Amino acid sequence: PPRNHSYLPSLVGLYDSPPGTDDAKLIDIFYPGDQLSITYGTKSRVGIGGMEAKVKAALWALQGGTSVVIANGTHPKVTGHVITDIVEGKKVGTFFSEVKPAGPTVEQQTEMSRNSCRTLAALHPDQRGEIICHLADLLVEKKEEILAANKMDMDLAVNAGQLSSALLNRLSLSPAKLNSLAIGLRQIALASQDSVGRVLRRTRVAHNLELEQITVPIGVLLVIFEARPDCLPQVSALAIASGNALLVKGGKEAANTNRILHELTQQALDIHWVKEAVQLVSTREEVEDLCRLDEMIDLIIPRGSSQLVRNIQSAAMGIPVLGHSEGICHVYIDSEAAIDKVIKIVRDSKCDYPAACNAMETLLVHRDILRTPLFDQITDMLRTEQVKIHAGPRFASYLTFSPSEVKSLRTEYGDLECCIEVVDSMQEAIDHIHRYGSSHTDVIVTENEDTAERFLQQLDSACVFWNASSRFADGYRFGLGAEVGISTARIHARGPVGLQGLLTTKWVLRGDGHTAADFSEQGTVKYLHENLPVTQPQPRQIAARSED
Amino acid sequence: PPRNHSYLPSLVGLYDSPPGTDDAKLIDIFYPGDQLSITYGTKSRVGIGGMEAKVKAALWALQGGTSVVIANGTHPKVTGHVITDIVEGKKVGTFFSEVKPAGPTVEQQTEMSRNSCRTLAALHPDQRGEIICHLADLLVEKKEEILAANKMDMDLAVNAGQLSSALLNRLSLSPAKLNSLAIGLRQIALASQDSVGRVLRRTRVAHNLELEQITVPIGVLLVIFEARPDCLPQVSALAIASGNALLVKGGKEAANTNRILHELTQQALDIHWVKEAVQLVSTREEVEDLCRLDEMIDLIIPRGSSQLVRNIQSAAMGIPVLGHSEGICHVYIDSEAAIDKVIKIVRDSKCDYPAACNAMETLLVHRDILRTPLFDQITDMLRTEQVKIHAGPRFASYLTFSPSEVKSLRTEYGDLECCIEVVDSMQEAIDHIHRYGSSHTDVIVTENEDTAERFLQQLDSACVFWNASSRFADGYRFGLGAEVGISTARIHARGPVGLQGLLTTKWVLRGDGHTAADFSEQGTVKYLHENLPVTQPQPRQIAARSED
Repeated sequence: PPRNHSYLPSLVGLYDSPPGTDDAKLIDIFYPGDQLSITYGTKSRVGIGGMEAKVKAALWALQGGTSVVIANGTHPKVTGHVITDIVEGKKVGTFFSEVKPAGPTVEQQTEMSRNSCRTLAALHPDQRGEIICHLADLLVEKKEEILAANKMDMDLAVNAGQLSSALLNRLSLSPAKLNSLAIGLRQIALASQDSVGRVLRRTRVAHNLELEQITVPIGVLLVIFEARPDCLPQVSALAIASGNALLVKGGKEAANTNRILHELTQQALDIHWVKEAVQLVSTREEVEDLCRLDEMIDLIIPRGSSQLVRNIQSAAMGIPVLGHSEGICHVYIDSEAAIDKVIKIVRDSKCDYPAACNAMETLLVHRDILRTPLFDQITDMLRTEQVKIHAGPRFASYLTFSPSEVKSLRTEYGDLECCIEVVDSMQEAIDHIHRYGSSHTDVIVTENEDTAERFLQQLDSACVFWNASSRFADGYRFGLGAEVGISTARIHARGPVGLQGLLTTKWVLRGDGHTAADFSEQGTVKYLHENLPVTQPQPRQIAARSED
Repeated sequence: PPRNHSYLPSLVGLYDSPPGTDDAKLIDIFYPGDQLSITYGTKSRVGIGGMEAKVKAALWALQGGTSVVIANGTHPKVTGHVITDIVEGKKVGTFFSEVKPAGPTVEQQTEMSRNSCRTLAALHPDQRGEIICHLADLLVEKKEEILAANKMDMDLAVNAGQLSSALLNRLSLSPAKLNSLAIGLRQIALASQDSVGRVLRRTRVAHNLELEQITVPIGVLLVIFEARPDCLPQVSALAIASGNALLVKGGKEAANTNRILHELTQQALDIHWVKEAVQLVSTREEVEDLCRLDEMIDLIIPRGSSQLVRNIQSAAMGIPVLGHSEGICHVYIDSEAAIDKVIKIVRDSKCDYPAACNAMETLLVHRDILRTPLFDQITDMLRTEQVKIHAGPRFASYLTFSPSEVKSLRTEYGDLECCIEVVDSMQEAIDHIHRYGSSHTDVIVTENEDTAERFLQQLDSACVFWNASSRFADGYRFGLGAEVGISTARIHARGPVGLQGLLTTKWVLRGDGHTAADFSEQGTVKYLHENLPVTQPQPRQIAARSED
């Protein structure tokens, strides 16, 4: 077999062209009927090292009713071992099968999606908006069909008895949910007006040589989500608004609902002949198999629990992942905090929606307010709100009868629980947050502007707030229009992410025969590098035009 | 031993706290003297599962003169196998040693660098500029010492006889090189004025609730470069300008030069007491060992060959890598191209500096000009410039006596060689580039504005040029000031990258006791989301102030 690149998992099996040549691809599933299309000779067209003999043996076994996989046994996948992977039905090597499946492979889906989205990205922004609004209309018009499909999923889930009531709740759709989904989609349509093709920067490099930096789609997105089927139209609308190709993979438990929602999405896309831009990936595909497409997928967006995000980050094989991992958010009560603000902000940060990633997990209290009426008011409020308190080691040491001491200062409770810890100063609060926080959202409550400004400047978190609840860390509340998610990554997009997070840029240079040599020491021309005002061009509608 | 996370390479060995607790870290090297600091008991403080007995056995062997490693044998590193890794001196598990090394570990260096850069980022931009200018001065003032150290490296390299003359050339410094390096540094100092703390967006969320998005450093950068020691002051200046912590790892062959350049860098940093912000990583550390620090390093920047970049991308373990992988750049000659522009642009794109990643590798020619005088002029010019021509399959089929046919249409020659291929139309040129290009820089030469604009819009490359040489794809030529590199990634930064590529953002919200509940349906307040004009604040100089 051909030599593997050291960073690839074992991909060895049958290839459709001589391995190592342009476009040679591993064949995942080989059907006996395809054999005719392969030329055998002294130089095998399918592999190196006696592949012909292996294929013949495999076909012979297949005729006898035995399934065969040709794979490399010495380079196990990072996540396991070849034999067990094969037994578990994962995609390893080439599988020899009698039955050809009906649908396209995920590679073909990716290709279709990428091609279709090149047209999508070239549409007028109004046309992308029309597609999204049409999808919004369909969600309301076709609600009977959607709810019927959803009922099938719900019945199956209830009968199987495996889903918690929280998950069942997320799985179920209702006319009200569909209506608010449609409203959200219309907001995305509005936000989409100003996304693709926006000029960010213009420079006159030299006379008649002008440079523009403009926004363009990232490419192919893979969005993976769990139970909630309402994710599907939402992320589809975000991808359409930003001109990106999209592969969506939903949970098995919502298969029927996802199928009809995807049909409606393609129906909406079809009004501008870009039906293939959004592809539903069958639930048979494992996330690891999708991550094998690292040459084809440009960004993975997991929507769901921190656990889902972490699993995907570890499987991603170098494909960037845009997702929040954890929100260990702090509220620091300074010695000069105003009591009414403290109570309001702590209550809202912890109790408004404790499961959210922007909810407070640790309350840091300046030592000076520890034995004051303010502190009693805080604990009274938390008791009234039925918040379970865990004591940080230092706080515990101050108390005669301490609540349970925390196991870790890095806990994300996600519930009506929080940790209280004592610090000596604002600086110590910053040190604590840098050490135990997740750089998501952290708050200071103080009346001292100087203390506040130093906290805001020195604290290295995606969101730093002064006298405001941590719950404001949210794309809608920030006024970003459509929300893609909240990123805890440090590059590309950080904190609440709007449509901008689904865009990248390209540099467009228009010259008149300019060469770099013209500008050399012996050359005749000098760089001007003048910043030009950024004016947004009227988008050209050119997608439907015929060629040359 | 504790259970590994499935996505981590084998890290099992001795820990400094009970594994699984906050801050438990694997001990890389264990010195017998340290044993006293570890408490053994029924609950071992160093591990789970009889670690005490293992440590005793190891120490006993060490006394007998045998080195010992305690490691997990069942989870081999992704890149190899535990036993061979150990024999090759890689960091696996815990190594028991008699001799304590003089310097800090790379983990300690990272920590020192991160702490120091928090002060660096809080300096006034003028102060960061001063550090960089002082470093520029030192490069000129101390040139005798630098050149002496460089001579030692050169002599060692020449005596060893292992480096090619190209590599020796890159290794060697001269007074002229140091002077132009100093000039480059002063440009970076200038560009640094407008980097950290710039306000990108301001929103009035509600009355007295204002949101700002400001630029901040990414965090800890790891820059890895090969022979060229002039990289060290350059990347140090870029990191200082952007307020980032920096670990630099240069090639062994430049060890003496790198050492003195790093000393001068720390001397410059010391004028504002941030000496530790730039750390030189000893050449004993393998890139893979550094990538184990994935929790501590935020971005890796490889400077060097495509091969270096690929090696690092495969080792990066989820740490983002900012680097160019390949430049397979195309120039497409349209049927309506002007002959003088074609000759100028093709010559410059291929011959100005053939080793650069923005040099042309494939010349695409519209079929209609194939048997015209223009085409003869192109081939005459290439012959005069001694460019070796390879024929694409289609071009070869047109010729009676064809030059050698290309092995792959994806070749980066990096030399006076190129491929010529024929296409039927601008659309076919785009398809060819999408299929075989590397999305780096691609050029159309045509007088037809409509054709040009469609090429510029539809082609999905980082840089798309009309009637200009591919060689303009460069941060300096684009007018970005300091150049970090050219990115072929699709997210964060694409194409030539200025200082902006070393920055991320944070969201600063200033309120007056605002809570999310105030804005709920039952609440009293409504979101305004007014865009406010972006005014740059006078940076506050607060680093040197004492706390509370």
